[in-house]
Amino acid sequence: MRILVTNCNTTEAMTKEIEAGARAAASPGTEILARTPGWGPESAEGWLDSFLSAAAVLDLLRGLTEDAESFDAVVLAGFGEHGREGARELLDVPVVDITEAAAHLACLLGRRYGVVTTLDRTCGLIEDSLHTAGVARNCVAVVGAGLGVLELDDERRTESALLTAARRVRDAGAEVLVLGCAGMTGLDRRISTMLDIPVVDGVAAAVRLAESLVALKLTTSRAGSYARPLEKKRTWPSG
Amino acid sequence: MRILVTNCNTTEAMTKEIEAGARAAASPGTEILARTPGWGPESAEGWLDSFLSAAAVLDLLRGLTEDAESFDAVVLAGFGEHGREGARELLDVPVVDITEAAAHLACLLGRRYGVVTTLDRTCGLIEDSLHTAGVARNCVAVVGAGLGVLELDDERRTESALLTAARRVRDAGAEVLVLGCAGMTGLDRRISTMLDIPVVDGVAAAVRLAESLVALKLTTSRAGSYARPLEKKRTWPSG
Amino acid sequence: MRILVTNCNTTEAMTKEIEAGARAAASPGTEILARTPGWGPESAEGWLDSFLSAAAVLDLLRGLTEDAESFDAVVLAGFGEHGREGARELLDVPVVDITEAAAHLACLLGRRYGVVTTLDRTCGLIEDSLHTAGVARNCVAVVGAGLGVLELDDERRTESALLTAARRVRDAGAEVLVLGCAGMTGLDRRISTMLDIPVVDGVAAAVRLAESLVALKLTTSRAGSYARPLEKKRTWPSG
Amino acid sequence: MRILVTNCNTTEAMTKEIEAGARAAASPGTEILARTPGWGPESAEGWLDSFLSAAAVLDLLRGLTEDAESFDAVVLAGFGEHGREGARELLDVPVVDITEAAAHLACLLGRRYGVVTTLDRTCGLIEDSLHTAGVARNCVAVVGAGLGVLELDDERRTESALLTAARRVRDAGAEVLVLGCAGMTGLDRRISTMLDIPVVDGVAAAVRLAESLVALKLTTSRAGSYARPLEKKRTWPSG
Amino acid sequence: MRILVTNCNTTEAMTKEIEAGARAAASPGTEILARTPGWGPESAEGWLDSFLSAAAVLDLLRGLTEDAESFDAVVLAGFGEHGREGARELLDVPVVDITEAAAHLACLLGRRYGVVTTLDRTCGLIEDSLHTAGVARNCVAVVGAGLGVLELDDERRTESALLTAARRVRDAGAEVLVLGCAGMTGLDRRISTMLDIPVVDGVAAAVRLAESLVALKLTTSRAGSYARPLEKKRTWPSG
Amino acid sequence: MRILVTNCNTTEAMTKEIEAGARAAASPGTEILARTPGWGPESAEGWLDSFLSAAAVLDLLRGLTEDAESFDAVVLAGFGEHGREGARELLDVPVVDITEAAAHLACLLGRRYGVVTTLDRTCGLIEDSLHTAGVARNCVAVVGAGLGVLELDDERRTESALLTAARRVRDAGAEVLVLGCAGMTGLDRRISTMLDIPVVDGVAAAVRLAESLVALKLTTSRAGSYARPLEKKRTWPSG
Repeated sequence: MRILVTNCNTTEAMTKEIEAGARAAASPGTEILARTPGWGPESAEGWLDSFLSAAAVLDLLRGLTEDAESFDAVVLAGFGEHGREGARELLDVPVVDITEAAAHLACLLGRRYGVVTTLDRTCGLIEDSLHTAGVARNCVAVVGAGLGVLELDDERRTESALLTAARRVRDAGAEVLVLGCAGMTGLDRRISTMLDIPVVDGVAAAVRLAESLVALKLTTSRAGSYARPLEKKRTWPSG
Repeated sequence: MRILVTNCNTTEAMTKEIEAGARAAASPGTEILARTPGWGPESAEGWLDSFLSAAAVLDLLRGLTEDAESFDAVVLAGFGEHGREGARELLDVPVVDITEAAAHLACLLGRRYGVVTTLDRTCGLIEDSLHTAGVARNCVAVVGAGLGVLELDDERRTESALLTAARRVRDAGAEVLVLGCAGMTGLDRRISTMLDIPVVDGVAAAVRLAESLVALKLTTSRAGSYARPLEKKRTWPSG
Repeated sequence: MRILVTNCNTTEAMTKEIEAGARAAASPGTEILARTPGWGPESAEGWLDSFLSAAAVLDLLRGLTEDAESFDAVVLAGFGEHGREGARELLDVPVVDITEAAAHLACLLGRRYGVVTTLDRTCGLIEDSLHTAGVARNCVAVVGAGLGVLELDDERRTESALLTAARRVRDAGAEVLVLGCAGMTGLDRRISTMLDIPVVDGVAAAVRLAESLVALKLTTSRAGSYARPLEKKRTWPSG
Repeated sequence: MRILVTNCNTTEAMTKEIEAGARAAASPGTEILARTPGWGPESAEGWLDSFLSAAAVLDLLRGLTEDAESFDAVVLAGFGEHGREGARELLDVPVVDITEAAAHLACLLGRRYGVVTTLDRTCGLIEDSLHTAGVARNCVAVVGAGLGVLELDDERRTESALLTAARRVRDAGAEVLVLGCAGMTGLDRRISTMLDIPVVDGVAAAVRLAESLVALKLTTSRAGSYARPLEKKRTWPSG
Repeated sequence: MRILVTNCNTTEAMTKEIEAGARAAASPGTEILARTPGWGPESAEGWLDSFLSAAAVLDLLRGLTEDAESFDAVVLAGFGEHGREGARELLDVPVVDITEAAAHLACLLGRRYGVVTTLDRTCGLIEDSLHTAGVARNCVAVVGAGLGVLELDDERRTESALLTAARRVRDAGAEVLVLGCAGMTGLDRRISTMLDIPVVDGVAAAVRLAESLVALKLTTSRAGSYARPLEKKRTWPSG
Repeated sequence: MRILVTNCNTTEAMTKEIEAGARAAASPGTEILARTPGWGPESAEGWLDSFLSAAAVLDLLRGLTEDAESFDAVVLAGFGEHGREGARELLDVPVVDITEAAAHLACLLGRRYGVVTTLDRTCGLIEDSLHTAGVARNCVAVVGAGLGVLELDDERRTESALLTAARRVRDAGAEVLVLGCAGMTGLDRRISTMLDIPVVDGVAAAVRLAESLVALKLTTSRAGSYARPLEKKRTWPSG
């Protein structure tokens, strides 16, 4: 099985990290194919970036499809970012977004969960994304750690800021944590140990859910919302 | 006062129609400036188109800002389309989307309202847009008329299909109708007369709401969600 | 255009203040006609006052209608007070309540808004009013400043108490503030400057929304809830 | 124990009928005291009537209190009408409204209930009343029978119209019916037999709930919303 | 009238206390019949205990029915425990659970109520129980006092812990308190006096509601959810 | 990896069928261990059966644990049945219920899903189960096919009845179907083909989700609701 994982921003280093996380989570027989959009923001933090990113990722997916790149499922690795529903229209294979994926697994592990993310300005995006995905009900809080996506390099500061945010989420009633950022893979175990609470990483969750859908021969419904796009003239940025 | 109205698709004829509708609704002293995105779909019907359109409209707005084009408010003339929150981050002037605008006025005219739109596949988009705008609660139904955006040319067929959909919305409990498509200006009066029920046109509503915000010196809050975009590298399609 | 603005209590001085606020917010061609109910409470603080006020305002409106007083729209200037739906049944012209009006504009300015009002005991009234108006979803908090309506004279104390309440609302996640009391006009700008956040005044918002509805030839739906009152014997207090 | 039952309109015949229903439902030792407001509508059908009625009933209650009339609890016998919260502020004894009372008992009898009422125009009022009372969640439908309150005299037509409406409510998923009109006492048993489903009458339910509160020495909380009214000048219609 | 009250655990001393509370709350002519399940947990604290308790109570009820024990209504005296809907299927007489009973009366006494219970781990159970009973909407908080059910013997510690929890509930906006544990009867008055706020005891509330249903000849609907159990082979623990 | 699958009723033939379905869905390396409760109903149809079944399944799980039976995860194969949260308290390994599992995967395949089940009387159970699992929001309908669990043997009748119910669900807006009964495995593909819509089988979904949790080393949170059961005396039916 071959799963395409798309980064939501143009930073190659982050694509590499996502790829590593996806590989670590995948079943033995699964091949991970990570790709970076050709344009868009170098990090997605807020609605402007998110809408820019959504179109760039869709442009990337369209290009891969036209190039007859073969894959069995797609994982959209942008936490809280837009684009999910468009990818479902565009592709015949199942599409799993890391935001919803983490929430789905979190719901199985406790009565209430919460999300720790980078900047406060992205909390609203995440709340809306969980809501439309249909899994917001058991989410008690989405809390920002005051860190920009590209600051995640400083591991020590990142860990400390995330821990503080994680404690706030737990005190709000969360019994399970979701790490709300694609580049945080690895930190999940450490925070889980320190707080003695399960921590779900979106990339890992999405890879496993994508595998499950493929194994069960399930893919996006074409009845209703995600019918194939109508034939029409569309001017795409990448031509 | 100068209000910029952006079409959500690349069809110039539709921009013209929107412009005419905006002008007809505007106060005497208001100047309308209508613009078409430089890329994107020729019509927006579904999530793929909507995300493509959102980035294209944001690209257009960014370009106008960089060119120091002057305007006091922006009306986003794509019914149910994405992008609204991104424009609020990008611009210092107030931004009004025609989806929310129509809903806001509809709430003032009856206890429950409903939306009539073109294709069924866009109903979910509209429902989500009303929800995040905070005005979904009194909406009883969003019903598609089975018409593509670019088929609206055939006035007779359009009117008949919309009337059928409008009756379904009314029977679901709507006391007020919203016309959920940018290019429908003019039809609102006719349907209103035929069904003896108020019909709100989104472009007209948005122009008046934008004027109101400007007159009251109110603009988007920079505290929280719609803070100015962070400085960073963004590769925009239009360069 | 002529807009009738009704105070919700019998205090003439407050009617004058509301009138001044309405005038300051109105378009050049709009005439403001402010009226005080002939009976009811001298200030509306709580449900008992609110129900008394609602009937008194409806009695006033009925009297004006029977006297063939001419006006193009009505603004109900009682924040959180009852009566709105009754006025819509009674009158053929559009009716805008300052509670809902402020909320509608606030929704356009940020992802979440909050309300600062006078006494804590009125918070529940306001929450219910926003809910039935269909705009409660994006409201994060309604906070009382511990001030009686008739104590608003002491400007310094008022400002200080409102600022404290406003900070609580902002800390609860509000990106926009609504001033929840009819006699607070003028304070909106000062609090806005001090907290660097948009502040919406209900009277100003309602006047502009009323103007918009009149300009767009929209008025209350007679289909369903707000059908004309049935002919029957009603004993009105004012005879 | 002495329970005051207030009609919501000025029609004495209806007060008599309500009184009879209340007596039939009361415990042996309970005395029923029925009263008619001194002004207001002859029947309450819609918001205008409801707000007029609310003030008239509060005026009546105030008068009785000032006259030192003694009673242990109050039942407000206007289905869906306003005023409940005001009476709770005004009085030290418990207040039970027939709308909420019927819903509370209905919740104990089935997983979902529905309401059958007179005119369609009152359905919205009832929905809002159930919502603020906190018991709307298990209500699946509120359906009007197309009958005016004062037409209930014609028993045959009333029964037939109510049966039709009751079937619609049941088909919407209601396992229990609430008869949503004060003057329908007696019909509950017949409809219950015909449809083989429990039917709750609001007056009977409210009398029993009022008795229960008195017996358990429970009365309205003065902490928060229903604190005693502030001392101030109030001009009441009845002087 | 004869009301059967079932304890949810196997501790006889608690059954006695519940019986005393039920008797104190019942009308003069009402006979109270208290019963203890023959198996299950000695106290119900959490889901495991609750599901065990539910089956044990249903087993008890089935046994009593087969033994032709006669009673007019059943009160289920396990706060937040499961089983309610099953008892409604099983029995022809009305069934009232103390969780919902307390909430129904609390809704009549203030705009918002809250629940104080024993252990934090049972809060979720109670929230879910209020939700399915249809009375969660006006509940602002369910707070645990950090006490095990069987620790309630130490009256002083119990009172102090409950008072602390009660203050948290009040500060969260509750105007009425519900005591969320079957063995707390008696404490309600003391906490009510100390906090000057109504406190509802579930057993007392349920007894009065059960009496009301019997008096009004109302019982569980057989249409839909609570139809009589299908004839089939069921292996019951008690044989 | 070893997954324990528990039937919710005492019918061995159904356990076999569930076992076969689980095996067909599992990854190559996964071993399926199917077990039948030692007591309880022969089929679970309604709340009485569901509560009986919940305790019986928990009793079974307790026994297996005490016998040191080894397994890495548990799948609860009773659609809409109670017990899930109790199993999470009892066990250290992850627990997945087929109701929630099917819903989680369905959310990934379309904007709205619906459930087709056996008898109408179980619809409420399923709705409540989806609600507490946090995945009810995107469910548009739960529809019964009018078939008892033990009638599923008659394949032709079953298929026809389910198809009729499935069409109703689809017409209510479902873009994805969930088969709401443990013994329906196999039918999912046929209905999917006939309606051209994805159909999710709960057993298959739960097995894959359980595998995912085990692979990602995630298990139930012990912080809060699902803390280990308190040590106490519990009389279990099976001794």
